Amino acid sequence: MRFHDLHQNAPGWQTLEDTEAFANPYAAVHLVKVKTPMRPEGARWTVIHRKAACVIAPITPEGNLLLIRQERIPVRAALWELPAGQIDDGGAPGDAEIRAAALREMREEAGCLLAPEGQLTPLGFFFSSPGILDEQTFLFAASPVVPCPDGPAHEESEAIAECRAFTPAELRERIASGEIRDANTLAVFARMTALGML
Amino acid sequence: MRFHDLHQNAPGWQTLEDTEAFANPYAAVHLVKVKTPMRPEGARWTVIHRKAACVIAPITPEGNLLLIRQERIPVRAALWELPAGQIDDGGAPGDAEIRAAALREMREEAGCLLAPEGQLTPLGFFFSSPGILDEQTFLFAASPVVPCPDGPAHEESEAIAECRAFTPAELRERIASGEIRDANTLAVFARMTALGML
Repeated sequence: MRFHDLHQNAPGWQTLEDTEAFANPYAAVHLVKVKTPMRPEGARWTVIHRKAACVIAPITPEGNLLLIRQERIPVRAALWELPAGQIDDGGAPGDAEIRAAALREMREEAGCLLAPEGQLTPLGFFFSSPGILDEQTFLFAASPVVPCPDGPAHEESEAIAECRAFTPAELRERIASGEIRDANTLAVFARMTALGML
Repeated sequence: MRFHDLHQNAPGWQTLEDTEAFANPYAAVHLVKVKTPMRPEGARWTVIHRKAACVIAPITPEGNLLLIRQERIPVRAALWELPAGQIDDGGAPGDAEIRAAALREMREEAGCLLAPEGQLTPLGFFFSSPGILDEQTFLFAASPVVPCPDGPAHEESEAIAECRAFTPAELRERIASGEIRDANTLAVFARMTALGML
């Protein structure tokens, strides 16, 4: 897919050149020349395309957050993180698809469902590494959640070692100590704190 | 460079296969098979290598934070962010190089220096997108900072539109509203909040 099909031309932004240098189902490298509001003559850049993603904070009736500990091959470590995943979609996903993906990841990775009286609260989105990646990650809180009768249903490619509940104070301590160190969980914590939800 | 030269084999982790599918000065795509503690037979993965990076919160004598507004080609937007940049190093950078890079980015992008009596406080690191990228970003707060006599010295490839100070309350509002939406700034806000620094 071409870079300008993935990214609409906003006012002042326009793709002038685009070469796809590598692509597989997980990432595509585009060598582009893009006209920007401050660079009307165009600037050359390396852009890596990734599907949009979602991350979700499952909150128990007691007000605790469920995190999973997952092996992450690129960084060679098992990290405590909120459930997250990619959104399968050709281009810009719609609201309904984004919400469905967040609830699916929560069920598969943390083994829980939004309670019938529960609320799925959107917390906007963030860019994980906007100097190189176009990845856009949508953030949610789900409260309260209840255990799924079937338990978690991990995908074969994932390696999830544990799932457990953290009180907001425990979460804060592990962020302060540096143990929690993935952008997804830090971004949700930042938004929830700024919104007075934690 | 081979993936196992970039990432030491920790106990239980070992690169079994490694093909470099694309590389330029900005990113390298590795198709790897890695043995992990939970997957002793090895798992195939696409890993994109990026240099380590740093992000720094310049804090004025009044307790405000300096942010820059910068055009980001991969996401086609100008974002308000803390100063940040890559660390030029062959492999794992040392403490002195990481600190020097953070202070250099602060000087170049926000036009300020650590005051003679100032403190550079390390806030650990985070992984921006550990499902695909190995990028590791080191976080700092610098307090207090003073204007650099020469002003900012932007690199030619960067397009920085503005630099201004935000009170902690303004920063919180713009995070809550979703206007501040890059992982670097959200990660620093999360760590500083968890540590009681904001």
